Amino acid sequence: MNTIGSLFKISIYGESHGKQVGVLIDGCPAGLPISEEDFTDDLLRRKSGAKGTTPRIEDDKPILESGVFNGLSTGAPILISFLNKNVKSQDYKDLFTFPRPGHADFTAKMKFGGFNDFRGGGHFSGRLTLGLVAAGVIAKKMIHPVSIHANLIEAGGKSDVNKAIDHALKNEDSIGGIVECIAENIWVGLGEPFFNSVESLLSHMVFSIPAIKGIEFGSGFKASKMFGSEHNDQLIDVSGKTITNFAGGINGGITNGNPIIFRVAVKPTSSISKEQKTVNLKTGKQQELKVVGRHDACIALRVPVVLEAVTAIVLSDLMLMEQKIPRVISENSAR
Amino acid sequence: MNTIGSLFKISIYGESHGKQVGVLIDGCPAGLPISEEDFTDDLLRRKSGAKGTTPRIEDDKPILESGVFNGLSTGAPILISFLNKNVKSQDYKDLFTFPRPGHADFTAKMKFGGFNDFRGGGHFSGRLTLGLVAAGVIAKKMIHPVSIHANLIEAGGKSDVNKAIDHALKNEDSIGGIVECIAENIWVGLGEPFFNSVESLLSHMVFSIPAIKGIEFGSGFKASKMFGSEHNDQLIDVSGKTITNFAGGINGGITNGNPIIFRVAVKPTSSISKEQKTVNLKTGKQQELKVVGRHDACIALRVPVVLEAVTAIVLSDLMLMEQKIPRVISENSAR
Amino acid sequence: MNTIGSLFKISIYGESHGKQVGVLIDGCPAGLPISEEDFTDDLLRRKSGAKGTTPRIEDDKPILESGVFNGLSTGAPILISFLNKNVKSQDYKDLFTFPRPGHADFTAKMKFGGFNDFRGGGHFSGRLTLGLVAAGVIAKKMIHPVSIHANLIEAGGKSDVNKAIDHALKNEDSIGGIVECIAENIWVGLGEPFFNSVESLLSHMVFSIPAIKGIEFGSGFKASKMFGSEHNDQLIDVSGKTITNFAGGINGGITNGNPIIFRVAVKPTSSISKEQKTVNLKTGKQQELKVVGRHDACIALRVPVVLEAVTAIVLSDLMLMEQKIPRVISENSAR
Amino acid sequence: MNTIGSLFKISIYGESHGKQVGVLIDGCPAGLPISEEDFTDDLLRRKSGAKGTTPRIEDDKPILESGVFNGLSTGAPILISFLNKNVKSQDYKDLFTFPRPGHADFTAKMKFGGFNDFRGGGHFSGRLTLGLVAAGVIAKKMIHPVSIHANLIEAGGKSDVNKAIDHALKNEDSIGGIVECIAENIWVGLGEPFFNSVESLLSHMVFSIPAIKGIEFGSGFKASKMFGSEHNDQLIDVSGKTITNFAGGINGGITNGNPIIFRVAVKPTSSISKEQKTVNLKTGKQQELKVVGRHDACIALRVPVVLEAVTAIVLSDLMLMEQKIPRVISENSAR
Repeated sequence: MNTIGSLFKISIYGESHGKQVGVLIDGCPAGLPISEEDFTDDLLRRKSGAKGTTPRIEDDKPILESGVFNGLSTGAPILISFLNKNVKSQDYKDLFTFPRPGHADFTAKMKFGGFNDFRGGGHFSGRLTLGLVAAGVIAKKMIHPVSIHANLIEAGGKSDVNKAIDHALKNEDSIGGIVECIAENIWVGLGEPFFNSVESLLSHMVFSIPAIKGIEFGSGFKASKMFGSEHNDQLIDVSGKTITNFAGGINGGITNGNPIIFRVAVKPTSSISKEQKTVNLKTGKQQELKVVGRHDACIALRVPVVLEAVTAIVLSDLMLMEQKIPRVISENSAR
Repeated sequence: MNTIGSLFKISIYGESHGKQVGVLIDGCPAGLPISEEDFTDDLLRRKSGAKGTTPRIEDDKPILESGVFNGLSTGAPILISFLNKNVKSQDYKDLFTFPRPGHADFTAKMKFGGFNDFRGGGHFSGRLTLGLVAAGVIAKKMIHPVSIHANLIEAGGKSDVNKAIDHALKNEDSIGGIVECIAENIWVGLGEPFFNSVESLLSHMVFSIPAIKGIEFGSGFKASKMFGSEHNDQLIDVSGKTITNFAGGINGGITNGNPIIFRVAVKPTSSISKEQKTVNLKTGKQQELKVVGRHDACIALRVPVVLEAVTAIVLSDLMLMEQKIPRVISENSAR
Repeated sequence: MNTIGSLFKISIYGESHGKQVGVLIDGCPAGLPISEEDFTDDLLRRKSGAKGTTPRIEDDKPILESGVFNGLSTGAPILISFLNKNVKSQDYKDLFTFPRPGHADFTAKMKFGGFNDFRGGGHFSGRLTLGLVAAGVIAKKMIHPVSIHANLIEAGGKSDVNKAIDHALKNEDSIGGIVECIAENIWVGLGEPFFNSVESLLSHMVFSIPAIKGIEFGSGFKASKMFGSEHNDQLIDVSGKTITNFAGGINGGITNGNPIIFRVAVKPTSSISKEQKTVNLKTGKQQELKVVGRHDACIALRVPVVLEAVTAIVLSDLMLMEQKIPRVISENSAR
Repeated sequence: MNTIGSLFKISIYGESHGKQVGVLIDGCPAGLPISEEDFTDDLLRRKSGAKGTTPRIEDDKPILESGVFNGLSTGAPILISFLNKNVKSQDYKDLFTFPRPGHADFTAKMKFGGFNDFRGGGHFSGRLTLGLVAAGVIAKKMIHPVSIHANLIEAGGKSDVNKAIDHALKNEDSIGGIVECIAENIWVGLGEPFFNSVESLLSHMVFSIPAIKGIEFGSGFKASKMFGSEHNDQLIDVSGKTITNFAGGINGGITNGNPIIFRVAVKPTSSISKEQKTVNLKTGKQQELKVVGRHDACIALRVPVVLEAVTAIVLSDLMLMEQKIPRVISENSAR
């Protein structure tokens, strides 16, 4: 299923080399100003011209197909599509026989009986994150004044990200990284114990992003090495503010008013120019494979804006549930 | 919401010091043998008599209230309840004024306007995991021959778990740990790209378990430091077997037939005997707090069986969706 | 699946002749006063001592197992159970071979491979509506000041209900009826076009009640014989009040502020004392059947309170969604 | 929310006078042949050139935007869009002040704070049923060999439908009708007791269709006037076949193998040429209104194909749940 959310529901669709990719957004309050320009910054951050990212050039122009009238959301579902133009499908024709290591070529073929659109990864492509980013732009407006910022804090184990990428490029290789996301100005009381814990909802969405291998909140994996007396955040006032924030802003699944902090591990891009080995699915024999086509040396560079988007999407849903976002945004609202 | 799942749906309820806790299970195929004895081993593992765990003694006897007839599931919802008997509510009466550091006392009070049952953590108590473990017992039967094993591989940063706990106990302190979970004999093709990725569904459930601070699949956070050429698992036959398993058994959100491997970070128990500081919510002033009551020195000791349970629950749902579990278990089935 | 609802979610469970039946309620705001006495009136209306109803005597005492503390809802799930005491299972032992006409004996056996609890209809029993009525009692409190009233307006085609039942009893037969339900003091704007139309949500719940054969809103089936010029309700003020109410209080799936009005058709009780024919599922031969056991001559007598309950449940969910019910009921609220 | 379904999920979007309307379909098995021609017949039946229907001419050409590759479904979401071309928005500009009787103009404005796209009914338009019909075409293929047929059996209270429409047209008026739908070759065992009863799921979808005022299964409202001895369908063989079919093919919410039969009441088209009265929402005063624009004299003429579609959609979901439709359609399947 490609749909998620309770009151703010998003569905993504499309294929890398099909006609289009996009997102259907349901539950946006009526009256929210939305224009195609609103998407420019985040889409640009996702596309990124930075060193180490794929040279596939798409204009990534969002088309508001429904749900917006006179520059304002109507309360009806919003469909945002992105046309695929710069498509080179011949690059991918052998994937069915020679599954690329680290990719979903093998699992997709097995699951869908070989009927999946394999061109450029098809529906499994990172291009589908365009829809997530677009939905995130709307979600960020909805959750005002909550602010969310994510950054690549480490690549290939180094904090000097550019240097690490240079090194990988020289070796026809790719590297992973760590992205940190912080959400501030959070209401106390979002989320629930157990299945609707903020960590549950966030991690669910975060692992929807291709290439994520791990997530940790607040102290994260370091918590496993700490004593309780160190780890317990000490409250300092009745608003819930704490001195440390090992909890990552969440206790018992519920926001405590301190910033939500989490980090994710991003694996190195699976597509590399270096020669690799795989199995020929027709003959069953191992074989050399050289992955042609366009790819990023460090996919983690694109992750921050996607991480912000999914965080905003989760918070939108939670804030609607807690009645912190009205069903109709009045015209004189500050949003 | 305390309900999760699509075709195998579970709902947990109850409070630590109320009448009972339990779980309502919907979607179990008809014809599955279920007896109260089936639950003994896993409930015992959860309760654990091991050093460092709470001395609260409950018999944790599951009562099959519905959905089982003549020792077999009927296809109707299964309610399993656990009565609370050994309750000492007087230990907790001040929590409303003096929220315990690291606990949900503050967030629960704020979210529910002070109407929450605060006794022993109320609905936020780790005791609610009884329902998860019980549902897991049934799920493990459903997913046969998939097998799941979780182990505490590190506590307080040490692999010698007992020594670490001894050390913490001497200091009236608590420690965290790391638990690894491995599921074997997995079908190829469970899960979906994006929102229903196996990682999404597993992490969602895993963060429903109290005290979890992080999760990583396969290579996990180490992936961020690796090159693509190292990280890409090499296929060696048409069944999808790979030499390494950095993917953790999942590509593109879909199982590839190799074991699913993930690890979680567990924080140190929040309740410690050592004196701590908190805020008096009536006066707004900081104050010393000594948490009385019964508690575990290393809650991570109880996590493995809960982790197995939630993994089995997720796999049950996915296998029903992929039609790998029949709706009626025939009498001569090997289960 | 035995769970329904978005923000106000209910799950029913249990069997007619098992240990208990009940309901798990999730999403009730914290702070709502709830006592076991609150349920007395509606449960009594459902049980009914009236002529023509089954002589099975159960005390139908609701047990609040969780989610209520100090007489107020806590915000956590509320489990309400009803113990089965007056059980005569020997009455039903042949149902597996001789399915009763009009009952679910045949379909239940086929669907669940014969593993279903057949005693007294098992999970299919009308006794499961106890959970609906109990959830309805809580829902009615939540939706204050909306008021809901349902009445049996016709039985066996006659408006003199008692006379019709007498006639049926004399003939060892049963009769159906029509129940009308009216909800007043409704907000404008509940519901949505298409899949979440008020009619969709209400009819979904209404057909969860056993024995319902039809539902119509406002003009209902008469609409099919009317002209548009007659049928269009004329607005008379800016609040949305209309002269006629053929719309049944709903336009485009959304409440218009006029009373919601609908009627349901209830079939005659399937269990009758008269001899009937069925098929012996072992031999495949037709055979005479005399249904023994306790049963109602006119099940429609019990429907009004159940109809009110499901209406209140649907409205609770819609009002939470539209933020017309707060997440926490403050102590000085009039509820 | 504009999304419905568990394993076969559909979401509709768009506005009457916006860029497009359409449907996003999730859960279609991979390998199902789908071409744009497949939609022609049902879309034509919906559009209908028959007397009494609107003269708005759209080509209603479905565009398969995603999820289909080489003429076969891929298992990924299928987006089908229909461009709006023949749009005359000036017809509708006053609806905000003068709500049309019988329409959603008033409720939509109130619910969405006046931000809704009011042109031609916007998102509330019957044009949205294009998406339902398109999803129905795919669903009909999935449920093979189940066959579904719906017919207008009565209009304006007369079985001579054309004569009734002529009469209405002469009077610048509109009429309603009754549509009957029959589904044959049904598996025994689809649906569940209570919330997932076949009647619940069907009625939910049916009331998503604009203008429906009532639904009845099998005997329907007549059941209320019958004796149990008449109403109980007599089984005649072990396959579940019954002599009569007052149950409408469903017992206890579960299909019994006999045809599913239900009828719906359709109200007369709300838009009529005759002068009517409404309220001026700015002044609060009553006023004459003449609805201009294009409209059907008998909207019931278009309902049969939509009814077939939603029935097929519900059955697809139920059959996937009961594992009667494989997740991958093999190439040599008869479908």
